[in-house]
Amino acid sequence: MPSSETRGGLATLGPVELGVRQLLDQLFTAWGQEAGADPMAFPPLLRTSDLAAFDYWTNFPHLGLLATGGHPDRVAELSAGPHQEIAPELLSPAQYALPSATCYAAYLHLAGSRLDGPRRITAVGTCYRREDHYDGLRRLMGFSMREVVCVGERETVLEHIAAFTERVTTFADRLGLPLAVEAATDPFFEKDAARTLMQQLFPVKREFVYGEKLAIASVNFHRNFFGERCDITLPDGGPAFTGCVAFGLERWLAALDDRFGLHAPDLTDRILAAAGR
Amino acid sequence: MPSSETRGGLATLGPVELGVRQLLDQLFTAWGQEAGADPMAFPPLLRTSDLAAFDYWTNFPHLGLLATGGHPDRVAELSAGPHQEIAPELLSPAQYALPSATCYAAYLHLAGSRLDGPRRITAVGTCYRREDHYDGLRRLMGFSMREVVCVGERETVLEHIAAFTERVTTFADRLGLPLAVEAATDPFFEKDAARTLMQQLFPVKREFVYGEKLAIASVNFHRNFFGERCDITLPDGGPAFTGCVAFGLERWLAALDDRFGLHAPDLTDRILAAAGR
Repeated sequence: MPSSETRGGLATLGPVELGVRQLLDQLFTAWGQEAGADPMAFPPLLRTSDLAAFDYWTNFPHLGLLATGGHPDRVAELSAGPHQEIAPELLSPAQYALPSATCYAAYLHLAGSRLDGPRRITAVGTCYRREDHYDGLRRLMGFSMREVVCVGERETVLEHIAAFTERVTTFADRLGLPLAVEAATDPFFEKDAARTLMQQLFPVKREFVYGEKLAIASVNFHRNFFGERCDITLPDGGPAFTGCVAFGLERWLAALDDRFGLHAPDLTDRILAAAGR
Repeated sequence: MPSSETRGGLATLGPVELGVRQLLDQLFTAWGQEAGADPMAFPPLLRTSDLAAFDYWTNFPHLGLLATGGHPDRVAELSAGPHQEIAPELLSPAQYALPSATCYAAYLHLAGSRLDGPRRITAVGTCYRREDHYDGLRRLMGFSMREVVCVGERETVLEHIAAFTERVTTFADRLGLPLAVEAATDPFFEKDAARTLMQQLFPVKREFVYGEKLAIASVNFHRNFFGERCDITLPDGGPAFTGCVAFGLERWLAALDDRFGLHAPDLTDRILAAAGR
């Protein structure tokens, strides 16, 4: 039987683990669609310049992973190795970054548009974070994040967040998965960075935490930050508000494994029953 | 209605396009499972040293995309910008590469194992190729590749390839999607590189080509190359043979769009009927 393994922040999932991840993703997607979200797929790389528009490089330069190829003039050296690691001087300037969250691409997709009503989008993406340590499925360098994004008036976005807070909480209760809902500062934003003060002023993030500090989902209210930066405007011409609910799918696997065991024969039925499916 | 767009080799898929991609992926996955393949998910990054074991850097140093973070000593400069592109001297040595094919990770997963029978695995992954030009969904920097891999005796692998050649051909015939089956050298391997001679000696790759040179799938016989390099052994102790069928999902979208239109209301029914589902 093929087995799952995690090494150095990178996970291989066997059929059982992959099956549970797919089931969860289908469930969260269905929640998104029931809330009016369009399923979409976004590019797997972002431009470094697009991330700069979100103050990304100012706020967490240490977390980002960049993507670039070998420098055309240094191909012979790149071929020659060593290949345990490849020296930066053999590389071209980096124009792309690996996404650290799924929703950035959604705001970039809507950039420059004027909404004629609220826009809801759901997407899953592989996200990457360069951490100082990794821990099984709980903390990975590369992981899957399903999001349901809402773009519109302030009240519409806050209702989206409230509805998903209720939905996640009810599902976890029925499933018997104890979750604490905790206000959080966004771990993306470094201490003393521009956003931190804003976050202290407004409760912009709540996390759904299993056991010892395992945040498996979060709801996020960005006020009109992305609306301003991406020039997404409301029908009245003002900048749109945005918010999202995000599910860290491998972290759900870690929590479910801890609570029930991923190979428990009744796990699928438990999940479907808790979801009322 | 949300729309698809492709810019600079990166695609955004709207609900219709994403729905067709999912339908195709489910179909190809089912084919794999019917052939005895275990569905798995592999890491989204590979180690540069693992790729070196496959002569990757010797054979196509120009195609690879590397992933690395900022250098810890240069964080302030990384923050300061400019961010249109990030200078290589601000980066750490690269220890990871973005996959250019889904199946490499499968052979690495099986590395060091002795088989007690054939092993079949199916997986989908985002793959990356740095090209000198991009062309809509036909040629992307980042795209989705579904593979069905077979590892075992030579004859078993050749039967796997023959069965999938038949399956793809029959499906395309019934669908009314004209495909030419063409012997190919692997475009991965540079002229004059080590593998090219081998490929001229053995017909190791066949491509399913739509219209003007759009290869939407391929079957590949690697002889015992990956078995040797990854120390995957047969029950008799010899190196295992490997082969795979690979589907470029966005290229299928491009071909189906050209032939039928992706928004044709009967496209899903056509695909399901051609697949006998």
